[in-house]
Amino acid sequence: MRLCLVGGTTATARIDGISAAGADPGLLAHTPSADLEVVALGEPARAPVTPVSPTGCPTPAVVTRAVRTLTGVETLAVDAGLARPTAAPTVSLDAAPGADLRAEEAVPGAADLVAAGRDLGGALPDDRLLVGETVPGGTTTARAVLRALGEHAATSSSLAENPVELKRRVVAAGLSASGLVSGDAAADPTQALTTVGDPVLAGATGLVLGALARGATVTLAGGTQMATVAALVRHAGVDDPLSLATTSFVADDETAAVDRHATAFGLDLRVTDPGFDRSHPATAAYLDGEAKEGVGMGGALALADDAGALDAVPDRVAELTSRLDARRAGAEAGA
Amino acid sequence: MRLCLVGGTTATARIDGISAAGADPGLLAHTPSADLEVVALGEPARAPVTPVSPTGCPTPAVVTRAVRTLTGVETLAVDAGLARPTAAPTVSLDAAPGADLRAEEAVPGAADLVAAGRDLGGALPDDRLLVGETVPGGTTTARAVLRALGEHAATSSSLAENPVELKRRVVAAGLSASGLVSGDAAADPTQALTTVGDPVLAGATGLVLGALARGATVTLAGGTQMATVAALVRHAGVDDPLSLATTSFVADDETAAVDRHATAFGLDLRVTDPGFDRSHPATAAYLDGEAKEGVGMGGALALADDAGALDAVPDRVAELTSRLDARRAGAEAGA
Repeated sequence: MRLCLVGGTTATARIDGISAAGADPGLLAHTPSADLEVVALGEPARAPVTPVSPTGCPTPAVVTRAVRTLTGVETLAVDAGLARPTAAPTVSLDAAPGADLRAEEAVPGAADLVAAGRDLGGALPDDRLLVGETVPGGTTTARAVLRALGEHAATSSSLAENPVELKRRVVAAGLSASGLVSGDAAADPTQALTTVGDPVLAGATGLVLGALARGATVTLAGGTQMATVAALVRHAGVDDPLSLATTSFVADDETAAVDRHATAFGLDLRVTDPGFDRSHPATAAYLDGEAKEGVGMGGALALADDAGALDAVPDRVAELTSRLDARRAGAEAGA
Repeated sequence: MRLCLVGGTTATARIDGISAAGADPGLLAHTPSADLEVVALGEPARAPVTPVSPTGCPTPAVVTRAVRTLTGVETLAVDAGLARPTAAPTVSLDAAPGADLRAEEAVPGAADLVAAGRDLGGALPDDRLLVGETVPGGTTTARAVLRALGEHAATSSSLAENPVELKRRVVAAGLSASGLVSGDAAADPTQALTTVGDPVLAGATGLVLGALARGATVTLAGGTQMATVAALVRHAGVDDPLSLATTSFVADDETAAVDRHATAFGLDLRVTDPGFDRSHPATAAYLDGEAKEGVGMGGALALADDAGALDAVPDRVAELTSRLDARRAGAEAGA
């Protein structure tokens, strides 16, 4: 078993108000690189960003790291369009960062990227794969892809208040710029990815297709972005069993419609509540609706539950976040 | 704590009789990619090679993998000139494969490579690093570097019979082609790396320098190639404490002179005997002098010893090797 985390970027994240990832827009491009470092190393290393929001909400990478240290689950990071260096080891899919989905083509190399992901998913030896993502702006590109496929276009948000109206306008502009109306790409998921997707959706879709093709069991570890990967797999004509392991925060988000996605795409839905409380700002922030999911968090929590380690997750998350806070304080004092 | 494994290639390995890595010369370039896959995934994935010698001796990567599964030690693979794709996640130092050391320059980008390794070593958060290598032909380039530095040029071999005379001729030709006599690069380790080294020695030296500069404790995990990294660090004027954790097979190899290297370079020498016996071809091959060390094996064994898991290593190595053998048999049957 292995938890694969596909990281990348899309210029869509630069649209004001779209993403909570990265307090400073200039640092946003570093967020997925930092997320992969947090999972692999416990803290950012090359990435000059501490992925904790101004309110003290840590990246969900901290939850995945917590589970990794508690259960020893092996992880594999995949570079599907990172824009900044990372000290996390990655397998590269040779992807460029994604363009703004309002460009004519958001991911010109989507077909190659799906193929590269498929090769990797086919080559890995694991009987069971969990697949997660980290891409700021990814719920907006996911929403656009769902529209292009003609599916119910509901996606969650890392912000406590999902900027649904803004996303709707951006997605409409994106489809229009590509000359598409809803459902036009229903028979061609690669077209949806190319015109309005992001490189992480493309790489993750390929990875899942490659793993399924060799008979592996695949769990999508995440929320509505990973549900969108399921939609892409289904529209590619692949009907193998798939499950979606997400967090209670996504399941409780009415704007996410994760139940409806699970039904539409034939997903076995697993929801795990990490049991966070208000004893630490890190866990309290999740109760307030921040972050919710990402970097494989829902899948990692399911693994922790299976290993009988779920009860230990909140304290470990608090401990890791305190270390990140101390690191930031040290960096600011030294600057 | 983290075990970093620096992998790459040098055309020096193509010289007939130099390397045991890869039964077929055409597959030799895949060996370090496969080694990193074995450590990360348990078996080769993208690399079309089963790194078990015709006599049944598995790559030392299997021993490192065994220790990883027994102790949970975190590893980080560094790409310092891999020539073939790998499904192992790596941090890239943007290195090209090394040329034959008899070329005028074996590693034209050595200075940049040392700098990139130094940046990575400086960025990693770990208080303690172990650093190992995988580069076929590496004992020959290490020998050439020791000569260029004016040090006692003894290195071990992955072959049961060290082809010392052949190495001597190749090294002499290499120094001559670069217009050097022994000791000419004593004050300039980068010159030694550039003229007759390999990209793994360069990347590993940088990694060690970067880690030492931020106060980390560094253990060189390997035999005479890692002792050569120590030589390069000393010739760069850095006197911080360094230890060398190697296997009993290297320590018992008179051609390796590892005690003499430890004294010369001020290394705290730790030798670990994995307790292999003749109950399985995999462990028996090591008793016959094959492989001996590599891919961090000596350091991994020391970690297993510290964790009280050393006794479990031989069985785990036998088990992992049997799986590789079965995989090869399956591939041959399917071919």
